[in-house]
Amino acid sequence: MIYLDNAATSFPKPSKVYDEVINCMKNYCANPGRGSHDMAIKSALKIMECRDLIGSLFNIKNSLNIAFTSNATEALNIAIKGVLKKGDHVITTTIEHNSVLRPLSSMSRQGVDVTIVQCDKGGFINPLDIKEEIKVNTKAIIVNHASNVLGSIQDIRTIGEISKKYGLIFILDASQSAGSINIDVEKDNIDILAFPGHKGLLGPQGTGGLYIKEGINIKPFKEGGTGSSSNLMVQPKEMPDIIESGTSNTPGIAGLSAGVKFIKKIGIRNIYNEEIELTKQLLEELSKLPFIKLYGNKSIYNRVAVVSFNIEGIDSSVVGEMLNEAEIAIRTGYHCAALIHKSIGTEYMGTVRISPGCFNTSKDIEELIKNIIKIYKLRYIN
Amino acid sequence: MIYLDNAATSFPKPSKVYDEVINCMKNYCANPGRGSHDMAIKSALKIMECRDLIGSLFNIKNSLNIAFTSNATEALNIAIKGVLKKGDHVITTTIEHNSVLRPLSSMSRQGVDVTIVQCDKGGFINPLDIKEEIKVNTKAIIVNHASNVLGSIQDIRTIGEISKKYGLIFILDASQSAGSINIDVEKDNIDILAFPGHKGLLGPQGTGGLYIKEGINIKPFKEGGTGSSSNLMVQPKEMPDIIESGTSNTPGIAGLSAGVKFIKKIGIRNIYNEEIELTKQLLEELSKLPFIKLYGNKSIYNRVAVVSFNIEGIDSSVVGEMLNEAEIAIRTGYHCAALIHKSIGTEYMGTVRISPGCFNTSKDIEELIKNIIKIYKLRYIN
Repeated sequence: MIYLDNAATSFPKPSKVYDEVINCMKNYCANPGRGSHDMAIKSALKIMECRDLIGSLFNIKNSLNIAFTSNATEALNIAIKGVLKKGDHVITTTIEHNSVLRPLSSMSRQGVDVTIVQCDKGGFINPLDIKEEIKVNTKAIIVNHASNVLGSIQDIRTIGEISKKYGLIFILDASQSAGSINIDVEKDNIDILAFPGHKGLLGPQGTGGLYIKEGINIKPFKEGGTGSSSNLMVQPKEMPDIIESGTSNTPGIAGLSAGVKFIKKIGIRNIYNEEIELTKQLLEELSKLPFIKLYGNKSIYNRVAVVSFNIEGIDSSVVGEMLNEAEIAIRTGYHCAALIHKSIGTEYMGTVRISPGCFNTSKDIEELIKNIIKIYKLRYIN
Repeated sequence: MIYLDNAATSFPKPSKVYDEVINCMKNYCANPGRGSHDMAIKSALKIMECRDLIGSLFNIKNSLNIAFTSNATEALNIAIKGVLKKGDHVITTTIEHNSVLRPLSSMSRQGVDVTIVQCDKGGFINPLDIKEEIKVNTKAIIVNHASNVLGSIQDIRTIGEISKKYGLIFILDASQSAGSINIDVEKDNIDILAFPGHKGLLGPQGTGGLYIKEGINIKPFKEGGTGSSSNLMVQPKEMPDIIESGTSNTPGIAGLSAGVKFIKKIGIRNIYNEEIELTKQLLEELSKLPFIKLYGNKSIYNRVAVVSFNIEGIDSSVVGEMLNEAEIAIRTGYHCAALIHKSIGTEYMGTVRISPGCFNTSKDIEELIKNIIKIYKLRYIN
């Protein structure tokens, strides 16, 4: 199988990720933070190692301000539902994933005022459009760093500056960027950062995280056993215990630790270069085919390794099935992003999405293109 | 290391659990429900397999009414926060874990009326005490099936009957019982069942689940990508999608599937017998030692494999450290259960907790007892 669905979950993982998951499970996986025996301590230390690695990747000074979650969706729900309350105004965009749009839609029914800024056809937000929507009761800005449909990277530096200037909370959804492009919470004025562990960070599924800047008040989401203040009936107020209730996914986090170590060893810039080189090849080849309708920006400028298109007159799901028969794994449809399809005119058809990862090769792209041509010919020529 | 901390997380796991986690990660771990390619389908089928296995274990007719969660704490939060609203009355008990008490304490600040029924010194709830507290606005009863501090098993059959008779929602926390004692949602009139995957079900950490009986209205907790109705900004209303947002922990669930298969092969009754035999040996040996203060019921009657005690005059944490030096892993302290310690008089000291699992042996208990005697002698005799 040629796997080109890395925007959904990265595959394969670096071999040390597998090794560390199984090493943890077989040798030391006790309950971190819930016991003083060696295995529980080793589990807790492994989790702390991962917290520190992620902290240093995103320039987070105190890694205790990072809480682990089961995925980015959970992290975004904690942020959105923990920060906003009735009467607050929040600004977001049409390019968001449902993990932002659906919680916000819920919050709007509870009296939160939600403004959705329109992106252009390339999938880019003009930061000034966000600035224009700021009101006296605006509390937060929530932005998708890189689109899971078009690959467009937003100008978070400028958005972060605007947010800081107006004293707002800047919440960044780094689902498609963490591990692929540099993120610096200090330079980019990111107050809350939500990220998955199983995509660009190359960890196992079942992992993700949430950074919350010191001083930001957040309501706990899941409450329960934290291993700390066990004799109290209220959730501790300190990070990360306020967020991390119940037994952590220790083997998952151990694997994530190995994934982040791999990224730090190779270097994010090098990983990005690998991925974007394949994206460039893909865009160039697709542009040569007159029956391909490409969506969003046609260049690799401000882009992650995500490309959406359709083959003229063939439903995206049919393309997906035929590529699957050719042993090429890609995703088709609406990609859990309810609003962007209207902007690009695919609200009744979805798109074919290709997302190369750092383990793909130029040959994988060649094979894909060959099969796309074959699918078109099968339908229209033979 | 002799591992006797299975109430926190079971260790080791059956070897097929390790095999399946790594097989999934290395060979087919795509995003379940988010793609039509073979790997995504294989991931989705594996999750469906696990849903069906758990369904048949608990006599749940439609396994789509089971949603996977990251642990039992998450499942309980979803249930408590999704079912109760301002003006409702709920009955719970003093033997609950913080994963019930903390969310309820939160809900009480939001206008939910919470009654906490007292258990006796053995850790047992009289179902009639629950019945007596039922009011016109009572909506639910939440009960811990088996205590993580005393091991006491509640009479859920009678509680379920009371709940049914009064038209209430019976929410069962099966954190210490799932996989160790039989649970039948039909016979026991359980409307909502929360369970961890990483304890008695022998799966990896990062897994758990929530069964919600057909017809019970629940608010979504985490909202976001579900792979279904992607073009809608509202969370789907159907189980399990209403609950399962974001990428699932496919390798974890694959491992859990292997854990449940192991349980079904060996038989819950046989697993229980293994564990309770060791518990019996432990209770008998501890009862012979005059310097041991045992808490709760002293017999194996209506009990899971959990035993709490203290050594006269020695802090539980010191006992834990000394046992750790002897390479015996146990848990000490408050065990994330805020109220039960007052009932048993350990609110200022916690307890030493031993929880054998089905892979422990009689020799492990002998070794433990030998070391408990040694700790006492070291302190008082030498």
